[in-house]
Amino acid sequence: MDVGDLRPEEARERFRAGVRVPTAGWCRGWTQANLLAVPREIAFDLLLFAQRNAQACPVLDVGDPGAVSTGLFAGDLRTDLPGYRVYEGGVPVAEPDEVRGVWREDLVAFLIGCSFTFEDALLEAGVPVRHLEAGTNVPMYRTSVECRPAGVLRGPLVVSMRPVPGSLVATAVRVTSRYPAVHGAPVHVGDPAGIGIRDLGAPDFGDPVEVRPGETPVFWACGVTPQAAVMASGVPFAIGHLPGHMAITDARDHLFQVP
Amino acid sequence: MDVGDLRPEEARERFRAGVRVPTAGWCRGWTQANLLAVPREIAFDLLLFAQRNAQACPVLDVGDPGAVSTGLFAGDLRTDLPGYRVYEGGVPVAEPDEVRGVWREDLVAFLIGCSFTFEDALLEAGVPVRHLEAGTNVPMYRTSVECRPAGVLRGPLVVSMRPVPGSLVATAVRVTSRYPAVHGAPVHVGDPAGIGIRDLGAPDFGDPVEVRPGETPVFWACGVTPQAAVMASGVPFAIGHLPGHMAITDARDHLFQVP
Repeated sequence: MDVGDLRPEEARERFRAGVRVPTAGWCRGWTQANLLAVPREIAFDLLLFAQRNAQACPVLDVGDPGAVSTGLFAGDLRTDLPGYRVYEGGVPVAEPDEVRGVWREDLVAFLIGCSFTFEDALLEAGVPVRHLEAGTNVPMYRTSVECRPAGVLRGPLVVSMRPVPGSLVATAVRVTSRYPAVHGAPVHVGDPAGIGIRDLGAPDFGDPVEVRPGETPVFWACGVTPQAAVMASGVPFAIGHLPGHMAITDARDHLFQVP
Repeated sequence: MDVGDLRPEEARERFRAGVRVPTAGWCRGWTQANLLAVPREIAFDLLLFAQRNAQACPVLDVGDPGAVSTGLFAGDLRTDLPGYRVYEGGVPVAEPDEVRGVWREDLVAFLIGCSFTFEDALLEAGVPVRHLEAGTNVPMYRTSVECRPAGVLRGPLVVSMRPVPGSLVATAVRVTSRYPAVHGAPVHVGDPAGIGIRDLGAPDFGDPVEVRPGETPVFWACGVTPQAAVMASGVPFAIGHLPGHMAITDARDHLFQVP
């Protein structure tokens, strides 16, 4: 069965059973989200960080303290993602398949928009998506662009990259501009050095993809940005998704499209 | 006096008196246009060529045979542009300051949209325009993209190029998308080789500009395209503007903006 045809609860059941894969292309039409759960005492800082860096951190939903579901996500946030990253003191200490053992009652879960949401729209507009063709994870990079700090949180903007034929860059901009809640228009187009990326072949997260002659690297703000802030700021404890291994929500992509 | 503050009739008076300069930045807010005048017998072919290659050849106005003014241009098309190119058998044979001596009663004048029209909007949106900063002509290039032929006319797409900081490419796309009648969104973004341009430093028309680190070359369809078709097709006789030395019309730029 094509994983693009699965419903969210079917995908989540597979992930709960141990399937560990990047979710690009899964559950076509259903919105995917970044997860970051932080202790209640820094939840305000994270919300403010998201508000101040809205293109990178569009908040789709915030759970109650300790809650493992939200209005947007009917599954169990501790088990129903295909992979997790656990941070202590800002350092990734584990990448488990489920986090029931380390979940805490004071954790507040943030679901943050993901650029996978507009990939269907790109495909429908005739814009190829290389990591979908290759069946790999999207490449993501830390940039030299600093986010606006908020409370204890500071850190670099993280971006995802898709190579786009030069003749389709304008189309890619217009299509993704219609999805402001899931990162919207590109933050950078062209020379990676312009945002401090030295080597496209060595992403900080995810897998490298081929950039072919006549293609331009196009960079969108990425919901891994708050995890980079957790690392840069030495946050005592946090749980995030494994980059590219998203929470598949019960919301439809078109909810996040503006005219 | 800043030439950007001149009214169209004031600029045309100067050109009539012999001033010969690229018109980028002149008469801010007034629409500039490409001129191509061809014999009545191939006027239909040119109109069809324009219709089939609308992004490169957006027709703003067409004069009656022999007419030297149009509804959009109250001046004299034979004297009121800062420079002309006269073609015989598809070969440029002269670049005079006025063409009264070679104008013919059977010539049909086409006024075709020019990307200078959206440069004010780019500046207002914070997108720098290098050739305006440098006070030079915009660089233009023949590409490897073939236009759809029409009748006796065939030829390559010609593009203008503006280097745009990577962080502003999306803005440049959105701003220029709102001006479909004056070339609209870019036709290509990034690697010049993707459209067969070998050396950005050697434009086919106009002057080269510096592309700085972190900037991306952005290419828009150019109204010199029908002159390239005149050359490629060996049209017996034609008169065009000298590239970059446009007809300054009596229309306001905002007329060509869509919401």
